[in-house]
Amino acid sequence: MAGSNRAVREEQDSLGTVAVPADRYWGAQTQRALENFAIGIERLPVGFIHALGIQKQAAARANVALGGLDPVLGDAIVAAAREVAEGRLDDHFPLPVWQSGSGTQSNMNANEVIANRANEQLGQPLGRRSPVHPNDHVNRSQSSNDTIPTVMHLSTLLALRDGLLPALDHLAATLSGRAAAFGDRVKTGRTHLQDAVPVTLRQEFGGYSSQITHAAARLRRLSDELLPLAQGGTAVGSGLNCPPDFVPRFLDAIQALTGLPVVRADDHFAANASHDVFVDLSGALGGTAAALTKIANDIRFMGCGPRCGIGELALPANEPGSSIMPGKVNPSQVESVVMVAAQVAGHHTTILHGAAGGQMELNACKPVIIHATLTSIRLLSDSARAFADRCVAGLMPNDARLADLSGQSLMLVTALAPAVGYDRAADAAHKAAHDGTTLREAVLGLGLMDGDAFDRTVDPLALALGPDEDVRRV
Amino acid sequence: MAGSNRAVREEQDSLGTVAVPADRYWGAQTQRALENFAIGIERLPVGFIHALGIQKQAAARANVALGGLDPVLGDAIVAAAREVAEGRLDDHFPLPVWQSGSGTQSNMNANEVIANRANEQLGQPLGRRSPVHPNDHVNRSQSSNDTIPTVMHLSTLLALRDGLLPALDHLAATLSGRAAAFGDRVKTGRTHLQDAVPVTLRQEFGGYSSQITHAAARLRRLSDELLPLAQGGTAVGSGLNCPPDFVPRFLDAIQALTGLPVVRADDHFAANASHDVFVDLSGALGGTAAALTKIANDIRFMGCGPRCGIGELALPANEPGSSIMPGKVNPSQVESVVMVAAQVAGHHTTILHGAAGGQMELNACKPVIIHATLTSIRLLSDSARAFADRCVAGLMPNDARLADLSGQSLMLVTALAPAVGYDRAADAAHKAAHDGTTLREAVLGLGLMDGDAFDRTVDPLALALGPDEDVRRV
Amino acid sequence: MAGSNRAVREEQDSLGTVAVPADRYWGAQTQRALENFAIGIERLPVGFIHALGIQKQAAARANVALGGLDPVLGDAIVAAAREVAEGRLDDHFPLPVWQSGSGTQSNMNANEVIANRANEQLGQPLGRRSPVHPNDHVNRSQSSNDTIPTVMHLSTLLALRDGLLPALDHLAATLSGRAAAFGDRVKTGRTHLQDAVPVTLRQEFGGYSSQITHAAARLRRLSDELLPLAQGGTAVGSGLNCPPDFVPRFLDAIQALTGLPVVRADDHFAANASHDVFVDLSGALGGTAAALTKIANDIRFMGCGPRCGIGELALPANEPGSSIMPGKVNPSQVESVVMVAAQVAGHHTTILHGAAGGQMELNACKPVIIHATLTSIRLLSDSARAFADRCVAGLMPNDARLADLSGQSLMLVTALAPAVGYDRAADAAHKAAHDGTTLREAVLGLGLMDGDAFDRTVDPLALALGPDEDVRRV
Amino acid sequence: MAGSNRAVREEQDSLGTVAVPADRYWGAQTQRALENFAIGIERLPVGFIHALGIQKQAAARANVALGGLDPVLGDAIVAAAREVAEGRLDDHFPLPVWQSGSGTQSNMNANEVIANRANEQLGQPLGRRSPVHPNDHVNRSQSSNDTIPTVMHLSTLLALRDGLLPALDHLAATLSGRAAAFGDRVKTGRTHLQDAVPVTLRQEFGGYSSQITHAAARLRRLSDELLPLAQGGTAVGSGLNCPPDFVPRFLDAIQALTGLPVVRADDHFAANASHDVFVDLSGALGGTAAALTKIANDIRFMGCGPRCGIGELALPANEPGSSIMPGKVNPSQVESVVMVAAQVAGHHTTILHGAAGGQMELNACKPVIIHATLTSIRLLSDSARAFADRCVAGLMPNDARLADLSGQSLMLVTALAPAVGYDRAADAAHKAAHDGTTLREAVLGLGLMDGDAFDRTVDPLALALGPDEDVRRV
Repeated sequence: MAGSNRAVREEQDSLGTVAVPADRYWGAQTQRALENFAIGIERLPVGFIHALGIQKQAAARANVALGGLDPVLGDAIVAAAREVAEGRLDDHFPLPVWQSGSGTQSNMNANEVIANRANEQLGQPLGRRSPVHPNDHVNRSQSSNDTIPTVMHLSTLLALRDGLLPALDHLAATLSGRAAAFGDRVKTGRTHLQDAVPVTLRQEFGGYSSQITHAAARLRRLSDELLPLAQGGTAVGSGLNCPPDFVPRFLDAIQALTGLPVVRADDHFAANASHDVFVDLSGALGGTAAALTKIANDIRFMGCGPRCGIGELALPANEPGSSIMPGKVNPSQVESVVMVAAQVAGHHTTILHGAAGGQMELNACKPVIIHATLTSIRLLSDSARAFADRCVAGLMPNDARLADLSGQSLMLVTALAPAVGYDRAADAAHKAAHDGTTLREAVLGLGLMDGDAFDRTVDPLALALGPDEDVRRV
Repeated sequence: MAGSNRAVREEQDSLGTVAVPADRYWGAQTQRALENFAIGIERLPVGFIHALGIQKQAAARANVALGGLDPVLGDAIVAAAREVAEGRLDDHFPLPVWQSGSGTQSNMNANEVIANRANEQLGQPLGRRSPVHPNDHVNRSQSSNDTIPTVMHLSTLLALRDGLLPALDHLAATLSGRAAAFGDRVKTGRTHLQDAVPVTLRQEFGGYSSQITHAAARLRRLSDELLPLAQGGTAVGSGLNCPPDFVPRFLDAIQALTGLPVVRADDHFAANASHDVFVDLSGALGGTAAALTKIANDIRFMGCGPRCGIGELALPANEPGSSIMPGKVNPSQVESVVMVAAQVAGHHTTILHGAAGGQMELNACKPVIIHATLTSIRLLSDSARAFADRCVAGLMPNDARLADLSGQSLMLVTALAPAVGYDRAADAAHKAAHDGTTLREAVLGLGLMDGDAFDRTVDPLALALGPDEDVRRV
Repeated sequence: MAGSNRAVREEQDSLGTVAVPADRYWGAQTQRALENFAIGIERLPVGFIHALGIQKQAAARANVALGGLDPVLGDAIVAAAREVAEGRLDDHFPLPVWQSGSGTQSNMNANEVIANRANEQLGQPLGRRSPVHPNDHVNRSQSSNDTIPTVMHLSTLLALRDGLLPALDHLAATLSGRAAAFGDRVKTGRTHLQDAVPVTLRQEFGGYSSQITHAAARLRRLSDELLPLAQGGTAVGSGLNCPPDFVPRFLDAIQALTGLPVVRADDHFAANASHDVFVDLSGALGGTAAALTKIANDIRFMGCGPRCGIGELALPANEPGSSIMPGKVNPSQVESVVMVAAQVAGHHTTILHGAAGGQMELNACKPVIIHATLTSIRLLSDSARAFADRCVAGLMPNDARLADLSGQSLMLVTALAPAVGYDRAADAAHKAAHDGTTLREAVLGLGLMDGDAFDRTVDPLALALGPDEDVRRV
Repeated sequence: MAGSNRAVREEQDSLGTVAVPADRYWGAQTQRALENFAIGIERLPVGFIHALGIQKQAAARANVALGGLDPVLGDAIVAAAREVAEGRLDDHFPLPVWQSGSGTQSNMNANEVIANRANEQLGQPLGRRSPVHPNDHVNRSQSSNDTIPTVMHLSTLLALRDGLLPALDHLAATLSGRAAAFGDRVKTGRTHLQDAVPVTLRQEFGGYSSQITHAAARLRRLSDELLPLAQGGTAVGSGLNCPPDFVPRFLDAIQALTGLPVVRADDHFAANASHDVFVDLSGALGGTAAALTKIANDIRFMGCGPRCGIGELALPANEPGSSIMPGKVNPSQVESVVMVAAQVAGHHTTILHGAAGGQMELNACKPVIIHATLTSIRLLSDSARAFADRCVAGLMPNDARLADLSGQSLMLVTALAPAVGYDRAADAAHKAAHDGTTLREAVLGLGLMDGDAFDRTVDPLALALGPDEDVRRV
């Protein structure tokens, strides 16, 4: 990062002086962490950094309101923190996920950047640590140990509310739209991937939409569990050095900034030391991933073709499948969904390791927990949208194929039994199987009924809709 | 199972005749499955079998009420199914988890056992399939494809309501009891496993209790998602062959038998083909496992000793630790908790694989999903109770050790800063560290204050309780 | 276990006296553990218990040879331990997986059972602990902390050598047999589940066989890593109380009893405290599970039908699919394979949690590691055999369907390009797609070549076999 | 990426024309993929891109040698591909992991970048696709379906050989160095985290070094399984369009470029369709992660302090722990190791999902498999180095603390039993426990022996070294 010829300035912390790139707002502790943790390329997600900007604004407002912070400094801190929240200083947050397990370095990164930026706005050079001091003012009334879990909750709540939940709603609506457009086209049902009694494309896509709607509803309910915030517990949960009225004012500010109905954690010791709710949440993200995988795989199966597979659906052609062969369209959106789901599944394992790994007054796996959580949310959000817009919305039924396959099904024999008796119905099925004909041809050949009677009796759509479709679908 | 000299009888199915042990109620399809699936030793959990007994009772009642089943046969079915539900026929359910993915073999196992047992009660020999027929009567209006998911939900609801949730409540109460008993004994707080500002044992155990209470609350809310049942969808979700009024009467019977406010699934196609909610659930069980792991590990750490470790807590001696050395008590309950948590973590991976593996109108990984789910619930239930009763309830504080360690802590210096200023406080801490003395000795040595003043100023309990303990703990 | 009316006897340990069922060989420590660990229904696998019987034989032989154990007692111990090894005393090993993490209780269970059984053979009543004492004689020169890891290695080596590896070899041979029997039947290749250039059934099944062969080879190589044994390290790795010449004689006895070329661990501290190799092993079992899943899913896909799917293969009918519809055969063996693979995947997560959870001189997650390992091996062994015998061996090609589908493929156009040029080849493919005809019809319709020329040029088998089949398949 | 005011040029593919940023070498298919797959921020790892540059060089050399490619074009391709391999064109590979499951878009990205760069060197404008054509020349004799798995193997082999294995060797050497430096300082052994018989710091760190050495050895052996390459199988494994002599020349070129003894896959159908070996590999990376976790946790435990914990080791101070309290050093390197291990554990779940998800002639989860694999390798490499250099190398023993703790241990009583008999030894231990004294004081108090005799008898170092230390440590 700090190349050999790059201009530098000096920054200090309690261990001494460090050279920092001149064009960066961060300070000594961030720079030390960059050097101590030269691990991987994964930075803490920008959503986390932006939420840290929100948290620092709220803390500054609370400190000013309580008289613990000069309003001039407070305004400068709020203005700088707003820039962090708006993503305008992302390049000044270089730290990897793989740092101190409390996220202390990232908290200090925010304190240093905001202090330098505020001082700059107040006419001071970078590195001065005055009039705004990163610890005494930006971090006032806070500890990394309550700040970082607070920001974990905030960033997750925002990523769900503004990212994943709308994306899932969009996908569910797109699936429902396809269900309505496909309507009661009859197709072969399949259980165990074997021919079964008929269903309609509307029913299948309605089922898919239902899966996504339920997954989103479960996530929405679970997200309420993130509203209690750790702020106010400071280092160990006891609230040492946090003024008594700080938390209510902080919560008001967060609500004003985000619209989230946040509350105070009912046990600050648990709030600093445990993040079990993230395990539940990643489990629910896994439920969403399972739903996406199932739906995507079904679409790949129905789109298998164009000539030698199932071919009940035509996939949209987003990219060249084959330069010479028409109709070869690879289900690449399906494949990206399946890969995203595999990543989300893996992140659960990671998050559970992290959440189980707390010790005494601190869980020291916070960065990996929030990295995996926000990455899963981001991937599912982006993937749900791409899948909805670049795959589901463009699916087209292949009527000839649907009719051809469902016409060949011998499972329609189920409808004959009431009319001709079980034994003769079975005879017809066996004859059709033996002769390789349709069931209709076999029934007519056996003289069990005439063609009109067969067509009245064996109505695939009626079989699909069932006896009380209205009851079931309301 | 059917040893060479064991008496057998003949049973039939559509593929022919099979020899079955004479003293078993199962029939041909169960016997075939035993031979086709000689895999592992894991049977479907008894909780699942018992819930299948409940489901068959409810189905028989609904069929009788609708006039589709002779009341005499219906009563015989209900009586036999009740025996299944009560666990009196467990030995007649020999099938492994590793069977058809729809659980068809276990559904047929129930149908066969109940039919044979009902016929026996009606004075007929086993194997007659009359007057009660396993398919026509016991399975009437049902398919494996809606029955098995219904029973998956029922058995999980019961295992949570009657097993895990009371066990977690018991553990939370036991932890709270210890918190109250320990009271405000001050101890060294630890963050990053390093000395930090003081806390009390009550605060720590209150935090543990809070973790468990929250985990249970999340599970309780999530269990509501299991109330919608798949029954009525039959083979593919369309409800073919299920009479229109069957489902309401079935649901009434289930409510009467179990007290569970079950409802009809709002989309039967999704209900047969997807089990995403089990992924969410196992995620929440993982959250519980993470909480248990953290608490257990902390107790192991605080109990580390007796001489050369932390030794803040004495563990109850459940078994000989060492025949020669007094006080060596191994944290074996902690170790079993940690192993249970590892198993629960693994089951999530299994369940997600299973839930993502559905295809078209059927998820065909049902047995492994319910096996892993019920096993996780069982292990967590048993483990929470054993941990509460055989470990937590017997924990005793080591007052001498708590006082000794917290008295040595240099973190108390934090409390000096307001009185003597930051710089002189730091001087005292450095002197104590350098000389290997307590902070009190260093302060007195530097003449910063006298002993009385020190003791008034540096009050570990006040530091632990913090400025607004009342606010925080209501 | 010990019912209210059951006869009991008294057994002692250092904590006092305990009532034990009169017909069981176990003693006080086992009984205490049964009561302290009333968790779940999972016992330590019988393979582990049998290997414990082998280990105790070898230890007794070594102790006698060194003069530390009276030969009369030694012979009695060896005889009793042999009964354990042969599975004749399985009912006397009731302890759950969820016990002390060192497996101490199971080691004591073996010591107690063997002592009681040996004393019985020597004419003494149970519970006497004389002349054979469970600790002083059966456990002589050993600690649970070196014995249990030794037995973990032994039981895994035997389960691989005698169980899984032959089962995988059998499956690979069965797949190769099918490849040979199917021969060069041409079929549509599929990439992205879309029509691609042709392959033969032999090639596909040859690929499957290759996957299994490679998986087995990797497992075989990895199993060598288990040959170094922890025995001799005793409690902490230092070998305290283990005579200098004990280990070589112990290893000789193990080799004689098992044929395994075991050696001494090169670092006893690591051998007691870490089980990383089991993580690697479960990873390799996961590789096997992935291979089985892929192969099973392909067979399910090719067997999808009978009328409305792919239908290239007919699955063997092991159980009634549908009583009325001929040809409906559910891929139930495939489904059990997929579920087994999901369980094996989950066990990896469990094992990694366990292996990462060691502390200082001991890994205290040993029972769950060996439970998950041996269960995975058992499930894969049984499942590979059932899949080979009840599914793969009975697969039959559907020649009409293979020819029909591959004849319709437009991907054969690839072969036309060299003869007629890329542009005209593409024209033919587009015409065939537009008109819904075969490529042959389109080529003839465009007058690009005559039928004979087409058949000579577009030879699907030649396309499948490729330019240097011989080179590639040697 | 392509901002509103950014200059663009037009590129073509078989679907038409696309606007591409003027300063980028990529073409139409890459640009389409960027728009179709706006998912996440994770790009395919640079190690994969660099290996793709190696693969394209080798393919061009083989094509030239066989006369299938004009040497002038071939040289231009080789030169451009070398730039890719050297990392000079990383900014021209913008595609996410979440794309087509075959990696086709990334293969085309390479083909397009190399063609444009080669044409530029040959004096042509970008976008001309002449004289070097991305498909006809750069991708000649190849398909994405054999190229991508080939590059997966190559990039993994290089990352292991040049990254992880040297890093593990460095860590093992650093641990051994500490073992040697610490020497035979006696300390309390701990099993179940309870006091046990003594060990030395050398023994513990020797054990850690042994764990890492074995983990590296297992990885080294397993990496040989990656030497067989898929190249030559083209689209479905049959090698269609790949000249017979291409593969040997390709392999020679790879060997020349990398020094890796690569060979041809023995079954190309399996090589395109399955990646089971990556599951084994991630399992072995998990074994390494388990080892690192155990070692790191032990160091955190021994470094727990400075006053109120174990304090046997002093951790190096890399960053301010507390501005006021001396000696507070957070084990931040330990925490980053633990988080890295959690991520590696999660990646296994991901890779297994991906590897099990292949279908017929193609595994279409290739990008996520290689992303997770190379990320795990990168994280373990970086983390092992940071941990070695910034933590292990700076560890210092706290002699006073080691002596104090081990002197208090009652487990030394074990050594008394041979001299004074078991019962009197136990009496001494109980007296010491009761009185809170050392064992020495109790023995002297009971008059069992005098001080000199005690010190000769109870020699902790002799107890730690054991009876045949020399045998065991060779």
